Amino acid sequence: MASRLSVSITYCRRCNFLPRALWVAHELLHTFGEYIADLRLIPAGGGDFDVDVNGERIFSRRQAGRYPEIAELKEALAARLEPEEAASLKRHPHPPAAG
Amino acid sequence: MASRLSVSITYCRRCNFLPRALWVAHELLHTFGEYIADLRLIPAGGGDFDVDVNGERIFSRRQAGRYPEIAELKEALAARLEPEEAASLKRHPHPPAAG
Repeated sequence: MASRLSVSITYCRRCNFLPRALWVAHELLHTFGEYIADLRLIPAGGGDFDVDVNGERIFSRRQAGRYPEIAELKEALAARLEPEEAASLKRHPHPPAAG
Repeated sequence: MASRLSVSITYCRRCNFLPRALWVAHELLHTFGEYIADLRLIPAGGGDFDVDVNGERIFSRRQAGRYPEIAELKEALAARLEPEEAASLKRHPHPPAAG
């Protein structure tokens, strides 16, 4: 059975981080769609740009003092897959849809 | 207190509906960000393109036999706001962020 990842992106609305959040959402859903149960976009404030996977924070803009790189987010998601699933993603970065 | 809407977009991954889903997400978060608690993108199959608000289905592609118009989705969300909030959105389609 495929791993099921629950992702959330909390972004500062007043900072106009919505396009960034949507871009990250696109990248993660495009590559990991097969393994993602849901991806939540959460409008917030305070300069937030946080990414959580299965309730665990994998990136905080305020803590890091920068925006996340897509590559580091993808690594964090891949680390939560079964080894053979992650290996398959490396061979086929955009696995054929099987929905 | 602002109304809190919980939105979800369930889309068929194998049909490549991700870009459509992201576009709808953009439109709803751009206009209603102030009132949206979260918007979930849910990869699915079977030709799905469904939109739910607060657990209530407001659009089903299979039932409608077509894709949703952005305008009808926005009407459905506005109908779930307080009257003065919906009126404010009509006056200021993209309210200033207050996050």
